[in-house]
Amino acid sequence: MTSTTREQFLAALAPGGAYHPLTAVYRHNSSADYIGIFDAPVIAALSAAGVKWIAHNGAGYDQIHVQPCIERGIKLSNTPGAVDDATATTAFYLMISALRQFSIAERSLREGKWKELTNPATQRDAEGKTLAILGLGGIGLRLAVLARAFPMRIVYHSRHPHPSAPEWAEYFPAERLQEMLGQADVLSVHVPLRKETEGLVGEKIIRGLKKGGVLVNTARGKVIDEEAMIRALEDGHLASAALDVYPDEPAVNPRLLSFPQNVLLPHMGTETRDSQRKMEVRALGNVRDFLTKGAGNDLVPEMK
Amino acid sequence: MTSTTREQFLAALAPGGAYHPLTAVYRHNSSADYIGIFDAPVIAALSAAGVKWIAHNGAGYDQIHVQPCIERGIKLSNTPGAVDDATATTAFYLMISALRQFSIAERSLREGKWKELTNPATQRDAEGKTLAILGLGGIGLRLAVLARAFPMRIVYHSRHPHPSAPEWAEYFPAERLQEMLGQADVLSVHVPLRKETEGLVGEKIIRGLKKGGVLVNTARGKVIDEEAMIRALEDGHLASAALDVYPDEPAVNPRLLSFPQNVLLPHMGTETRDSQRKMEVRALGNVRDFLTKGAGNDLVPEMK
Repeated sequence: MTSTTREQFLAALAPGGAYHPLTAVYRHNSSADYIGIFDAPVIAALSAAGVKWIAHNGAGYDQIHVQPCIERGIKLSNTPGAVDDATATTAFYLMISALRQFSIAERSLREGKWKELTNPATQRDAEGKTLAILGLGGIGLRLAVLARAFPMRIVYHSRHPHPSAPEWAEYFPAERLQEMLGQADVLSVHVPLRKETEGLVGEKIIRGLKKGGVLVNTARGKVIDEEAMIRALEDGHLASAALDVYPDEPAVNPRLLSFPQNVLLPHMGTETRDSQRKMEVRALGNVRDFLTKGAGNDLVPEMK
Repeated sequence: MTSTTREQFLAALAPGGAYHPLTAVYRHNSSADYIGIFDAPVIAALSAAGVKWIAHNGAGYDQIHVQPCIERGIKLSNTPGAVDDATATTAFYLMISALRQFSIAERSLREGKWKELTNPATQRDAEGKTLAILGLGGIGLRLAVLARAFPMRIVYHSRHPHPSAPEWAEYFPAERLQEMLGQADVLSVHVPLRKETEGLVGEKIIRGLKKGGVLVNTARGKVIDEEAMIRALEDGHLASAALDVYPDEPAVNPRLLSFPQNVLLPHMGTETRDSQRKMEVRALGNVRDFLTKGAGNDLVPEMK
C-alpha cells in the first residue's frame, strides 16, 4: 500500500485507480495509521473493487467490521494460533514482574538508587498463588501451562469449558465467576474486544478480586473499564496493573504511570521477529490458498 | 545486633561485652554493611565467645570464610532449598526480558515514546531456543523446569550429572563445554562464588556462545569476568546481559547501563516476603535444632 490517507486509498480502489481491480487483501494493523480501520465505507470500496478475501495479520480483528464483510460476501481470516506463544509469554512476564516488583526495581537501579525504591513487603513469589484466566482460548491455555510450572493454581472462566483444558485447570461458569475472583491473586484477561466485552472488566469483576490482586491485560485495552481500574489502584484494592494494551493506543493514560508499582509495556504481545514471521506466513498462506484453492484457513468465528 | 561498626562488635564479643558468652549466631548478609564479612578475625572472636553454630540466612555464603570455621569447630549452615524458587524465577524473568526486549520497551513507554525505542528485529521468542545452565543445583533445576514449559531445549554443565535431572536436560561434561556453548541462545550462571569460580565466565566461555547470545547471572557478580562481558557487548557478540548481581554491589559499573538492551536488577533474587519468610524459618530452625537437639540441618557442603 502506498496510500497515505483514506481519500487516496479509496480513490486508488475506484475503477482506473492503482489498486483496481483487486481480489484479496493482506492487512496489518499498521495500515490504520494511514487509512483508518476497515469500517463499512472501506469494506464497501474493497468489495466494489472485487475483493473476496481479507487476510488479516493478527489474532485480534477489532479493527475490521465483520458485519459489512458478511453482507458483501467477503471472507475474513486472522492468525489465531500464531500469536499464542508470544502473547502468553507477555502476560506471563507481566504477572511475574508485578508480583516480584521487578519493574520498579530496575528503575531504582537505573536511577542510581540500587534497591532503594523497592519494598520487600510488596514482593511476592508466584509459587502457590492462584491465577485466574478470563477467556481460555489458545493464549490463555499457553499461559496456564507456563504458570503451572511454578506451580500456581489455575482457575478460569469462559462461556464454555475448554475442550482441551488440562484437568488441573478449574472451570468456573458464569454463576460462579465472583467465587472464582475471590480466590484469585492474579487475573489475566484474554477475551477478544467485541461490543459485549467492552468494559467487561469493570467495578464488579475488579472488586471481586482478593484485595492486593494483580490485573494483567494483554488482550485489548477497552475490555477493561480503565476508570474502575484506576480507582482500585488508588484505594489499594489492586496491588498493581500489568498492562500491554490501552484503550487509546498509542496514548497511555498518564494516571497509569503515576502508580510506580504498575508494569506498562507498549503493546509488545506479538512483537518478536519469530512471531511476526509466523503471523506473516500464516496470513499470506491464507491469501495464497484462497487464490490457488478457492479458500484459505482461519476464518474468523463469526463466519464459521 | 546493635553494633554499628566492627570495632563495637568485636568489643561486645569480648568477656564482659553485651554478646558474651554466645552459643549460636543467626546471620544475614545485611550485617556486612556494619561489621564487614565473617572473615578470620570475626570468626576467631565468635569462637572465643563460645559460638559453635552459625546459621546463615541465604544460599550463597561467600561472605563467610569456611576454613576458619572448620579450624575452630564452628558449624555453618545456609538455606539452600528455600531460595530456589525465587532465584530461578528471577533468572527466568531476566531471560524473557532480554529475549523479548521488554525492559527497553517499558522505558520507551515511560518516556512517552510508546514503542519507538524498540526494534522488532532484536526481539525473540523463547520457544524452541536453547538454554544452557552452568551449574545445575536446586536453582538451575527449577529454572530448567520453568523454561521447559515453553518448551526450550535445556543443556547443562556441572562437575557431575545431577542425579535428579529430568531426561530432557542434556548433560555436557567439561570436555564438551565449548560444544554446549556453541548451541546455546542463553547461558544462565548458577555456580557459587569460590576461589576457583571467580572470573570463571570469562573470554573463553563468553566467546563460546553463539553470536547474539544472552548472558543471565543471578549467582554472584564475581563469577563473571565483567570486562570480558562488556567487550562482548561492545562488539555485539552478546546481544544482551541480564543481571541481578554485580562484582561490587551495590555499585554497578556504569558501562553496563550504557547498553540499552541490558536488563539490570538490584539483586532481587530472593527479595520476596514469601522467600524471606522461608529463609528465616529455615535458618532459625537450624539454630533451634542446634540448641535443642545438638545439631541443625543444611551444613554447607565443605562440612558434610
